[in-house]
Amino acid sequence: MIYWFDLLGVAVFAVSGALAAMQAGLDLFGLLVIAAMTAVGGGTLRDLLLNRHPVFWMKDTRYLLVIVASALAALMVGPFPGHAIAVLKIADALGLALFALCGTEIAEEHGVKPMPALLMGTLTACGGGVLRDVLSGQAPLLLRKDIYATAAIGGIALYFALKAMGLPMRWAFVLGMVGVAALRLAALYFGWQLPALQMLQLH
Amino acid sequence: MIYWFDLLGVAVFAVSGALAAMQAGLDLFGLLVIAAMTAVGGGTLRDLLLNRHPVFWMKDTRYLLVIVASALAALMVGPFPGHAIAVLKIADALGLALFALCGTEIAEEHGVKPMPALLMGTLTACGGGVLRDVLSGQAPLLLRKDIYATAAIGGIALYFALKAMGLPMRWAFVLGMVGVAALRLAALYFGWQLPALQMLQLH
Amino acid sequence: MIYWFDLLGVAVFAVSGALAAMQAGLDLFGLLVIAAMTAVGGGTLRDLLLNRHPVFWMKDTRYLLVIVASALAALMVGPFPGHAIAVLKIADALGLALFALCGTEIAEEHGVKPMPALLMGTLTACGGGVLRDVLSGQAPLLLRKDIYATAAIGGIALYFALKAMGLPMRWAFVLGMVGVAALRLAALYFGWQLPALQMLQLH
Repeated sequence: MIYWFDLLGVAVFAVSGALAAMQAGLDLFGLLVIAAMTAVGGGTLRDLLLNRHPVFWMKDTRYLLVIVASALAALMVGPFPGHAIAVLKIADALGLALFALCGTEIAEEHGVKPMPALLMGTLTACGGGVLRDVLSGQAPLLLRKDIYATAAIGGIALYFALKAMGLPMRWAFVLGMVGVAALRLAALYFGWQLPALQMLQLH
Repeated sequence: MIYWFDLLGVAVFAVSGALAAMQAGLDLFGLLVIAAMTAVGGGTLRDLLLNRHPVFWMKDTRYLLVIVASALAALMVGPFPGHAIAVLKIADALGLALFALCGTEIAEEHGVKPMPALLMGTLTACGGGVLRDVLSGQAPLLLRKDIYATAAIGGIALYFALKAMGLPMRWAFVLGMVGVAALRLAALYFGWQLPALQMLQLH
Repeated sequence: MIYWFDLLGVAVFAVSGALAAMQAGLDLFGLLVIAAMTAVGGGTLRDLLLNRHPVFWMKDTRYLLVIVASALAALMVGPFPGHAIAVLKIADALGLALFALCGTEIAEEHGVKPMPALLMGTLTACGGGVLRDVLSGQAPLLLRKDIYATAAIGGIALYFALKAMGLPMRWAFVLGMVGVAALRLAALYFGWQLPALQMLQLH
């Protein structure tokens, strides 16, 4: 079941990449590249850092097919109406939650300690969005707005805390995911943001 | 013979990187970095993703020597006259064709299926140009203008189609290369472009 | 002792990343990401290119702890007074020297030839700074200003020259480090810069 959730997460992230590409005025090829980067960029960086080969989308072609289909669908639906954007943001929060916990678990399976594993989970969940922003010529929004990566970190930390308290791994995993999604959705609903740090005059 | 073609492709891409660095007002070190990134960045990403070690320019130092020599030559020739730019664009189309098909074949040799292999070929051919643009502070042109990556994809698809129709691999390879170069040169000659996608108002 | 120097270099680079993040108006998460990227980004790229696993900060969690502590310290000290910046620049020159020579030696231990080893040393020392600039939305300063990477290259070249002249490796290593630091500090003190290359009119 996690596999199908995973494909759903990939689809949602591909749509988010496609929307960014349309906003940036890219062409069809650019749209597909940005959609793919957003959807599997984080997981690919994780696999490279963990020396996990073959990279997941190389052995299971379904990922690439889902990306192409989602990006083309986003293109054809065209300017998204407001409520479609809202649905997309909820799906995105679920994808974020799933990718964060799956990435963490994969790192643990590779014998990585909790602190770098938390980093790998966050990278899996948020790396694609950073690549999307850099490649479409923007400073990464992720680093500057929204409780997004912070939600991932919070949920992963909850997962480690629950495991340390003796909860079975499966329950800690699910509750960690719920934590990420709840933090992200609450931040969206209430408009929470981390404060930007004070400017410096270095000269 | 492919080896010498390969070095020629590296030289041409290094010159293109050096030109971009001069336009961006970088210094000598920046020029060499951008030239190297443009020339071997795509192939390096491919090798990392395929877990192919040592990375090709580490065992054969000739690649780095060719890059340094080409970049310095570009610097000394200085502002390129119009017809030198034209020669360069033709050589660039040949380099694109060679890198696209070689990258695809290397991926196939590593047991990668056609769809990700097509991706690896496109990455080999176009990844360096994207790195060049990001590092010299521009939104990647590749994703926004010109039939460039599209030519690579078209030629690689032709290669797979011809192989599937029973053509010997060697012939499919050569015809795929001809396909890439022809598409690219025709796009340059006739000014073909992919249409930019419509803008979206996300908020 | 090199290990403690290494952690010091990581701390200094993390502070430099944190300062850049504050200037760019990022939030707390962005600050930590940029600090980590600046501190270990170059070494991580080196490890990936050399196929050296696990990546150094995965097996020794102390690196991540030092990064978090340094970045938070930089945040709390707030707008740095002028003389703190001066101290930081000196520490940065020492970190640059250490990372350049350590990166080179690690590459040599992996059987890499001198020219790519020089590249690996430069990447270890300067890669993090380039990532910092790209992620905080600036064209990489490194490629455009200051004798920075050039100092790394000069010191590494000195190291190879001294080894070739028969000096024991340990002495060549130390003198190479002195070379990097001296070049960098002299460039800061005298305001040396590489000249920007001439602009080109490509069309």
